[in-house]
Amino acid sequence: MKKIKVGIVGFGNIGKEIKKQILSNKDFELVAIFARRKIKECVEFEKIEEYQGKIDLMFLCVGSQSDLEQVAERVLKNFNTIDCFDNHNKIKNYLINQQTIAAQNKKIAICSVGWDPGLFSLIRGLMDGLNLNCKTFWGKGLSQGHTQAIKNLPNVEDAIQFTIPNKNVVKQTRRGIDLTNFHAFHTRQCFVVCKKQFCKTIKQQILTMPDYFVGYKTKVKFVSLKKLNKIKSFAHKGEVVSVGDEIEFKLNLKSNPAFTAKIMIAYARALPNLQKLHKFGVFTILDIPIAYIIKKEKSQLI
Amino acid sequence: MKKIKVGIVGFGNIGKEIKKQILSNKDFELVAIFARRKIKECVEFEKIEEYQGKIDLMFLCVGSQSDLEQVAERVLKNFNTIDCFDNHNKIKNYLINQQTIAAQNKKIAICSVGWDPGLFSLIRGLMDGLNLNCKTFWGKGLSQGHTQAIKNLPNVEDAIQFTIPNKNVVKQTRRGIDLTNFHAFHTRQCFVVCKKQFCKTIKQQILTMPDYFVGYKTKVKFVSLKKLNKIKSFAHKGEVVSVGDEIEFKLNLKSNPAFTAKIMIAYARALPNLQKLHKFGVFTILDIPIAYIIKKEKSQLI
Repeated sequence: MKKIKVGIVGFGNIGKEIKKQILSNKDFELVAIFARRKIKECVEFEKIEEYQGKIDLMFLCVGSQSDLEQVAERVLKNFNTIDCFDNHNKIKNYLINQQTIAAQNKKIAICSVGWDPGLFSLIRGLMDGLNLNCKTFWGKGLSQGHTQAIKNLPNVEDAIQFTIPNKNVVKQTRRGIDLTNFHAFHTRQCFVVCKKQFCKTIKQQILTMPDYFVGYKTKVKFVSLKKLNKIKSFAHKGEVVSVGDEIEFKLNLKSNPAFTAKIMIAYARALPNLQKLHKFGVFTILDIPIAYIIKKEKSQLI
Repeated sequence: MKKIKVGIVGFGNIGKEIKKQILSNKDFELVAIFARRKIKECVEFEKIEEYQGKIDLMFLCVGSQSDLEQVAERVLKNFNTIDCFDNHNKIKNYLINQQTIAAQNKKIAICSVGWDPGLFSLIRGLMDGLNLNCKTFWGKGLSQGHTQAIKNLPNVEDAIQFTIPNKNVVKQTRRGIDLTNFHAFHTRQCFVVCKKQFCKTIKQQILTMPDYFVGYKTKVKFVSLKKLNKIKSFAHKGEVVSVGDEIEFKLNLKSNPAFTAKIMIAYARALPNLQKLHKFGVFTILDIPIAYIIKKEKSQLI
């Protein structure tokens, strides 16, 4: 079997996990890692175009909170890409933009393949096909987006935001009650490190932050940096439940970035089959048959 | 939108459910129901070839325990088909045979699309792609195959077999213990109606029946026909659990045939997209992207 030659763009938590898992996978060959910061084992991002023709697929591991969209656009002009873009509000436009660039440049962009968006999207699609109404619950786990939103406030030294599903809402959904007040679905638990004199202002700024916290039951606690580092955790949970509980899909992750990397690598393996279709553009998890990622014989899994 | 013209072959529990659900779905048109027995609203199965060109897709609803294979082979020569063939031991050969006939006759055969095989196959495929080891548990619920096996014994007037998962095995799988003695995964609970003088022989015949009961913890209880009809139930449960519990997929069905029909109808909706591929042959649930069965806009589900 021909190995898939890959590159990694961005060397944060997910990029590091991709590297680790790629190296223990015989069907991939890691050609280069690209980063904007100067890192010893990485190539300067500005030199990425020099690798044209040498890399089959680029893993985009730049955070969706930063400028993944600009990076993705640039990389896709010369390479096939896979990403786990997860900014729910921007996803529609992101997919449209990437579709245009991929089609123009005859490239394949595998988009938003993590656990949500990703595996959870697959299950929501399945439930939609089955005419089942479903709800998604996240947590308990660290939300990158909400954590970053707090960190961006002035005088915040460090912070964590845990998302916690409301047990009562989960229970009522299982019983068949179709609740729609999505603000009630989750509690937002914030831990903040700052100087004592800023506590009152910061708490107020968090509680009144639109989109992220307004409307949610939000708890803000001020802790020391030492305590914060102690409660930091990569574990995450989540579930998609059909109203009335006919179908339930649950994740219980020891490490969010490690599992996200695992999903991206599984779907990266779909590339040769996608290339055989001679169709260029965006492929989401809804567009890729499971047959493209399996290793066992089909009839054995059936 | 052009309606999909469908026929139903076999008018048992699933056939009746397909009819009911098709009639309340605007995107399908029910052309005819075919049965071998004389039933008022059905066309004689022997006349099925007369419907060539009038039906886009045939729902095969003959039980896998009877002669679905012969029926499927005959129907596929002239029509696209969808079935929920679930005889685990015969599935490999079934798929090979149907592939040959479909290719020869330029037809599409959507095969084994129920909940297991079907949704559970999809999840097992997903876990395989993610390098996760997983186990499938069924029940508590009525097993058609095991029930029929008991009914086939001489002097049995009626019977039911419930499959019950072993809670302890489920618990150990969640904890990460990779158990392989599959006989220990389920208990088989049999209820039998017969004349008193046959009880001893029948019990012995059940307990020594290879494949179906030998090796399993099997309980046999003799009851009256009245009691049997009281405990009969179409409810069924099941779950696919990854060893170590990172992923869990659970079903909790009020009615097994109604839910099976729902899945078949969802995947029947994939037909127009499959036809656009200009590829003839077998499509299992692993080969059909979820995008082919959804109703909502893609980015909304992502």
